[in-house]
Amino acid sequence: MPVYRITLAYDGGGFQGWQRQAGAARTVQGVVEDALRRLAGGAAVTVAAAGRTDAGVHAIGQVASFELPRDMAPAAVQAALNGLLPADVRALEAAFAPPGFHPRRSAVAKLYRYVLDTGPVRLPTRRLLAGHVPWSLNLGAMEEAAALYLGRHDFASLASSGSSVKTTVRTVLRSTVTAIEPSRDEGGRDPVWGIPDGQPLSTLVYEVEADGFLRKMVRSMVGGLVAVGRGTLTVDGLRAALLRRDRRAWPAPLEPCGLTLVRVSYPPGRVLE
Amino acid sequence: MPVYRITLAYDGGGFQGWQRQAGAARTVQGVVEDALRRLAGGAAVTVAAAGRTDAGVHAIGQVASFELPRDMAPAAVQAALNGLLPADVRALEAAFAPPGFHPRRSAVAKLYRYVLDTGPVRLPTRRLLAGHVPWSLNLGAMEEAAALYLGRHDFASLASSGSSVKTTVRTVLRSTVTAIEPSRDEGGRDPVWGIPDGQPLSTLVYEVEADGFLRKMVRSMVGGLVAVGRGTLTVDGLRAALLRRDRRAWPAPLEPCGLTLVRVSYPPGRVLE
Repeated sequence: MPVYRITLAYDGGGFQGWQRQAGAARTVQGVVEDALRRLAGGAAVTVAAAGRTDAGVHAIGQVASFELPRDMAPAAVQAALNGLLPADVRALEAAFAPPGFHPRRSAVAKLYRYVLDTGPVRLPTRRLLAGHVPWSLNLGAMEEAAALYLGRHDFASLASSGSSVKTTVRTVLRSTVTAIEPSRDEGGRDPVWGIPDGQPLSTLVYEVEADGFLRKMVRSMVGGLVAVGRGTLTVDGLRAALLRRDRRAWPAPLEPCGLTLVRVSYPPGRVLE
Repeated sequence: MPVYRITLAYDGGGFQGWQRQAGAARTVQGVVEDALRRLAGGAAVTVAAAGRTDAGVHAIGQVASFELPRDMAPAAVQAALNGLLPADVRALEAAFAPPGFHPRRSAVAKLYRYVLDTGPVRLPTRRLLAGHVPWSLNLGAMEEAAALYLGRHDFASLASSGSSVKTTVRTVLRSTVTAIEPSRDEGGRDPVWGIPDGQPLSTLVYEVEADGFLRKMVRSMVGGLVAVGRGTLTVDGLRAALLRRDRRAWPAPLEPCGLTLVRVSYPPGRVLE
């Protein structure tokens, strides 16, 4: 039976996360498996994914794989899936998976992005796709804090309670905060973000790539950056909180709507093009 | 009694348009008037707006005015309103209105923006904030078509059926199509729009400013531009359809979710700062 690898995009706002759950919870895995079951003529299809995104978290580069009971061209699988899926999930591409491919176990890195708006009023049209804090933040201090995460660390301070992972050590390959200057036309309006005239709104984008992530780890990382950016914690204080390996010492995680799984990387040769 | 002028932003997706309706329809006017009634200690407050946006249409610069039975500082009105309003409507600023001010009758121009994504797959995270067509479009032809709308014309071909306006003549002051090149970082990913690697998605922004608009006029203007951009109509054919003053000759309007009321302009001196 052919094994397919697909790239998925979804709006996490309507889902209780990726992973199928007992009961009536709407999950991304659930709607994709339901669509594939119809494509497979009623046979159950199990889908594995690279990242088990939490409730409310978006994706533009989730990678998933599954077997189908009949041979179809990947482009036909993609088109058929998009005809069966609800509008808040889309297959962006499809390919045959190479032998032994597993979207999570074969992955060498994942890239997440957190978009954070700052400013006194939360814009209605952005409230579902960006986190928001009402304070202005010190970008320089946040950049320094983001660099703390780089390299191999025990991230036990950032682990969600009640999770039962074997190790909380992860290696962070990239950790950058960028202030987005919206491209504004002559009139001072902003055609990209849709930020109104004269609003002191600004947007920060945090990108982090690692060999793996603990549950809520990125949102906790951003929580740490915001604490430093506001000045409620120094960079040294954040470093000490990281070394303490105690999640009670760590600032609260930010809301899920600002987070997107952007890309999953595989070693060359593991993915057929 | 003091009269206030406020600037409103809203996500139109959850509203049956601006205008209060009989029955249970959720409208922007309805939720703002309900919030102001609570602010006014139970007294009914009527709100006038510059533009009666349709169901699904967003705003970042709607202007509204109302009287309150007691004197409050404008900043306090704004803060109190934002505490009472649902998250999909926000007051961005507030001021005392000058004598005789009416948000629609005093306005000299309104600026609308339509954001249109093109490409084979509609991205889930953008589906509520941009229109979408699956075709690639000829930007040069669309620019030429957009210039047709400039100046004083009878827009009867673009008027919604069953509307009873006195005149369908309007003067268009600005009409521009812009292709947005998302700012991409070294990795080729796009931190602003969140467009995934390698997707042939592109975004067009149409901005139109006029002394007034007929119902569905902007969405019909974009319908005309898309017909020309696809090649189903020539620029000359669109000009002929405009001159015919018959709405059956005009391409269908685009969906409302791509449209935003950006700014309302008043003559100098009509708005107290």
